[in-house]
Formats: sequence, C-alpha cells, structure tokens
Amino acid sequence: MIAKEDDLEVTAVECTPGEVTLTWHDSFYSVYSALWLRDNDPVHRDARTGQRLISLVDLPQQPRLRAAEPQPPGHLTVSWEDGKTSVFALSWLRAYDRSLRIGSRPTRMPWMGQPATAFARCDYAEWMENPASREDWLYYAGRDGLAFLGNVSVENRAVMRVAERIGFIRETNHGGVFDVPSVTDRALPVRTGDPYRDPVPGFQLLHCLSASGEGSESIFVDGMAVAERLRAHDIDVFNLLCQTPILFRFQDAEVDLVAERAMLELDTQGQFRTIYYNDRSIAPLPLKGPRLKKFYAAYGQLARLLHETERSVVCRLQPGDLVLIDNTRVLHGHGASTGVRHLQGCYVDADGLYSSLAVLSRSRRSRHDGHAH
Amino acid sequence: MIAKEDDLEVTAVECTPGEVTLTWHDSFYSVYSALWLRDNDPVHRDARTGQRLISLVDLPQQPRLRAAEPQPPGHLTVSWEDGKTSVFALSWLRAYDRSLRIGSRPTRMPWMGQPATAFARCDYAEWMENPASREDWLYYAGRDGLAFLGNVSVENRAVMRVAERIGFIRETNHGGVFDVPSVTDRALPVRTGDPYRDPVPGFQLLHCLSASGEGSESIFVDGMAVAERLRAHDIDVFNLLCQTPILFRFQDAEVDLVAERAMLELDTQGQFRTIYYNDRSIAPLPLKGPRLKKFYAAYGQLARLLHETERSVVCRLQPGDLVLIDNTRVLHGHGASTGVRHLQGCYVDADGLYSSLAVLSRSRRSRHDGHAH
Repeated sequence: MIAKEDDLEVTAVECTPGEVTLTWHDSFYSVYSALWLRDNDPVHRDARTGQRLISLVDLPQQPRLRAAEPQPPGHLTVSWEDGKTSVFALSWLRAYDRSLRIGSRPTRMPWMGQPATAFARCDYAEWMENPASREDWLYYAGRDGLAFLGNVSVENRAVMRVAERIGFIRETNHGGVFDVPSVTDRALPVRTGDPYRDPVPGFQLLHCLSASGEGSESIFVDGMAVAERLRAHDIDVFNLLCQTPILFRFQDAEVDLVAERAMLELDTQGQFRTIYYNDRSIAPLPLKGPRLKKFYAAYGQLARLLHETERSVVCRLQPGDLVLIDNTRVLHGHGASTGVRHLQGCYVDADGLYSSLAVLSRSRRSRHDGHAH
Repeated sequence: MIAKEDDLEVTAVECTPGEVTLTWHDSFYSVYSALWLRDNDPVHRDARTGQRLISLVDLPQQPRLRAAEPQPPGHLTVSWEDGKTSVFALSWLRAYDRSLRIGSRPTRMPWMGQPATAFARCDYAEWMENPASREDWLYYAGRDGLAFLGNVSVENRAVMRVAERIGFIRETNHGGVFDVPSVTDRALPVRTGDPYRDPVPGFQLLHCLSASGEGSESIFVDGMAVAERLRAHDIDVFNLLCQTPILFRFQDAEVDLVAERAMLELDTQGQFRTIYYNDRSIAPLPLKGPRLKKFYAAYGQLARLLHETERSVVCRLQPGDLVLIDNTRVLHGHGASTGVRHLQGCYVDADGLYSSLAVLSRSRRSRHDGHAH
C-alpha cells in the first residue's frame, strides 16, 4: 500500500474554468474536464452500488471551475463558480485516467486446430473449492472460448451446479437443463447453438454423464478465427456475411422461434462480436437472383472454412467431463460413432460469467492488499 | 381452401439448367434458382421441426436442373442432371415467393405522448382464457412496445403466471421475480432496464400489488421515436450516439455487471434496433478532450428529448394492473409521490414473446381453415 500511496502524491494542480490538470509524483499528468468532474461527483453516487443518482439534464451544461486543491490528504477538492464544492479521491481519479476501460473482459484470442489439452482444464473439486483456480479457468474460458472440467459427478443435472457457480441460467423451451440426443451414429457438423433464439445464449455447458462403446468425438472450431481469416483474405465476402440478414428458425408444436440476423456480427468499432452458423436452422434464404448467387458463394466459403480439419479441436468426452463453450464464437459438433452417450446441457449468459470473473479478481486483490499491511 | 387451391394452379413451367420459372393461374410468375431448390429439398428437412439435415458443403456447388413438371397434383417435381429428383409442394413454393420474410414480427410504430388508454389493455381473465385476445394483445405489445393488463390477482409472484404465458423468464441476480423498492417519494427519471446486462432483457413486466396514499405516476417514453427524431434533425448527433461505445455498470457485494455498448444500436440495414439509456448505470465516460465534449453534447441532447413532457405517457398503476414494456425501445420511470406502492417485476426475452404470438396466429389460422371445410 505504501508504494501505491506514493504514486498518488500530486506535485502540481492547475485549474482553469474548463479543466483541472494534475501532475503526479511520478511526473505523469492527467487532465479532467469540468463537466466530466461535475457529472461524476461522488455525492451523486449510491455508495453501495455505484449507481448515479442524478441525470445529465440536472447539471449545468457548462459548469465552470473556480479552484482546485489537493486536500484533504489523498483527495482533490474542487470549487465551482456557482458556489458548490466536490471532493474526489485521488486514487479514483488516477485509476480512471490510467485505465478508461473498467471491468474489461479478457481479450479474445483466435486459435487453429490443436490438442484439446492446450485449453484450460480443471478438476471439479479443485474448481469448486479454490477461488483462484476458478478465476484462472474463467479467464481462459473468456480468452479462448473453450475450457474443460474433469471429475464432475455423473449425477443427473449436476451441470446446473456448475452453471450456477458461473452465472445465471438461461431458461428455454427445453427448460434450464436439456438432454442431448444420445444416438450418435450420425455425425453432426459444427454449429453455434440456437441462433434462432433472441437473444442468443452466451455460453453453453455440456456435461458427459455416460459413454459406451466407441463414443463419438466432439469437435470444436473457432468461428472468430474463420471470420478474421475471411476479413484478411476476402473482404467482400466478409462484408457480405456481415451485412446480409438471413433467418434462423426452429418450430415444433409448442414454439416458433425465428431470428433475423447476419451470419457475422461486428461491434461499433468493427471488431468481431458474434458468429451465427447452424446448417440445421438456416431458413430458406430470403434472396433472389444475383444477390442470392453472391450470397450462396460467400456462405459456401464460410461453411468450407468452418469444416477444414486443420481448424478442429477434437476430443472424446468421458463420463464426468464438462466443456464450456463461448457460443458467440466457438462452434461445436461431433463425429459419427457406433456408441451411445448421454450429455446434459445448459446455457448461461455472458454478463453472469464476466461478473463472476470480476468478483473473483476483486476478492483476490482485496485479500492481497490485506496481506500487504 | 378452394380459392387457395385455385391460386396454386400452375399454367406454365419453364426450366433451364440454372432456374425454374412457374407461371401461376393468376398470371403472376415466380423464379427459383437451382441451388436454392437443391438446398431446400424437403427430403433434407426434419418433418417435425423443419431443421435442415445437411450442410451446404454436402451439396454440389452448381447443381444443374434437367426438367421440371407440375405433378403429382399440387406439387412440382424437378429432376437433376446428376440423376436425383426433388419434389416440392406448390403451396410452399408460392408462400416463399410471396413473402420472403417468414414469421415476421409486428412492425414497430413510433409514438408521442398520449393517454395511456390508447394502448392495448385487456382483462386478465379474458387474456388467460381467450387465445384471440392474447394474440391481439401480444401483437400490439410488439407494435407499440407497451400494453396493459387489468384485474391480475394481487398475490405475491402472480407476475410469473403472466410471464410464463408470454415466454421464457430471464433469471438475474435478483432471481426470476424482483421487488421494486416501495418508497416512491423521490422521482425516478425514465430509463431502460438494466443496460449493464449482456444480453439486455427484452421485455419487462411490472405488476402493482398495492398502492396507498397518493400513488406515484408511472411515466413511459418511446426511445425509438426519440432516436428517429434525432436521425431526422441532427444526423451527426445520431451517428455519434450510434458509434460511441460507453460503459454501463452495476456492482454490489455479489456482482460486478459491466456492458460496453453505444446508446443507440441499429441493425445491418440501418433500422433502429435498441436504445440503452439509464442515468443510474452510465459509468464515467471513457473519453477525453474534444471527443468527450462532443459526446456530452450529443448525450445531453438525447437526455433532454427523453425528458420532454409531450413525449410522456402517464398513468397511475392500481393494484391488479400489470404493464408490459419493450425494454429495447420504451423507457419507464415514475414521478414523486407521498404514497407507498409495491410493484413486482419480471423479465422475459423477445424470442419467447414473438414465438407465442406466432403459435397463436398459427393455431387461429388452422382453426379457420378447419371451419372452411
């Protein structure tokens, strides 16, 4: 803690009506604009949840600063031309300037085919008991989109106990836990789960309860790596797949689930966000003539890349094995087999998983800070 | 049914290796490309769920047609150069050509302030018993993003019974059903629910269990109408709000939920999809200098439009009232009051709601077709 407090010493404070500049002990400096400071005055935040208690419309549109002083110790006090005063913790100001991206998720790393042992794998008992192991495992699950647990009890619905530790279970028309058809003689090509749902489930858990005879091989492919390969080598195909909405559909006696979306989805900054690909549920393409022809060519190119064997991670799930799949990027399927196996599955959403990771990191940091005293 | 069968008579069939052209009894004609027909051959579909049983990579890249005949009655038989044959129902071919958008959702209509009575309202008993009433109500809920039920039993968790009829309940850190704090002396400006969740819940239900004294007024605003107003009058502000990712956050002892997204989200065709706006959970803006200044101006303009009273729908929820809100477009809040009220809330996702609507429409159509015989 001493080192940290040293860092937080301020050697100079400059104040104009529009901004405050702080020069830190280590010669770095930070600039804070007046409206940003006014908007983030800690008196307007709920202490327990960090929720803001005012609206931007309640603030002056151009608040003007009068003065800023580095006191009381560890704090900055600013006074405003309208007579108000705000007090900020220097640690908070410094943290915001250093890392504007709070609570960031692990950066997702693309991968090619490799042994399944290259991915995170943890023993179930260790994972349940040791928060540090769980934190690491969740970090790698976020980074790679694929992680394994071993020695999970082979009881019915044991997958729920794991899911509840990770996040919030997504209820669907199959309930919270679903059984994966056990007849595996026919291969099932890789796909993402349930693209006809809106929103699409973020992560899928699959738990192997039993496997007899020559169990089939599970296959995993990184759809993000395929998307980036298309972007690098054939930008027109990539753009077409990002910009052409198609329909995914599943219907039976109880439901008629339809979602319209492009096969590839980017965020506002053009970064890969999601792949939606499932041979089974792609509805007849709603296109005609030359547009249909061009789209079929692009779709075929994507499909062939997804099926390239050098992209596959292959493994035979044993009873007690559990796999977690990032359903926004990793496709899964299985090979043909003569055996019978019983898997149970469950969906959890992204927010819960990344919240668990953040809370585990927070607890570890506060334990470490405690030890340092 | 007789009229329909007449429509389906084919007066001419033209076939080239690349496409089939059908001229219908009513002189309309439809063109189907070879690959599309091969891709949608009904023998490759699961009869119960409509799921495709093959992958595009299993098909010839350029299948060539040899001949097409309008038989057996009501069907088209096409033969392929590689010796295969496919049979399609004419009703299916005609339906696909007429309306390439299957299972479409109600078109969302923007609205301004108006009496709450302008929105769909149904008695709970009627809604539960009569599928036609439920279908209409869901249609209007989809179109307007706001609909009311009356005389819902004021039992604890009764909101779940309504939610289960609509779709799949979204479990969160508050559980399936959550209590809305009952102290309402302080006004709560309009906002969308939980933008820090990923994915954001699609629809919110709020059920009034009790209201004493001068109960507070609920306020609803159409964020889609506000977004379209910005697009029409200030495209730069609109684009900035669509393209600038910010952070929404909620943290307490159990969770640390963070989502990064722009305040306005469009689909691949540039249509409005979602507004994310919540004063309480917008994290300190991760921007600096001129970008921060420009963004604050845009954000302020959005906030002021959302707070314009002529955009508000205002009503006092009574015990037994329930409101359904499309959380991707309609903001909700409440005024100040001296009374105490008890609301219970619940989230359901978009897929379940639109599936219920589709299944209700399907059942009604099949009942009508039955009557016609």
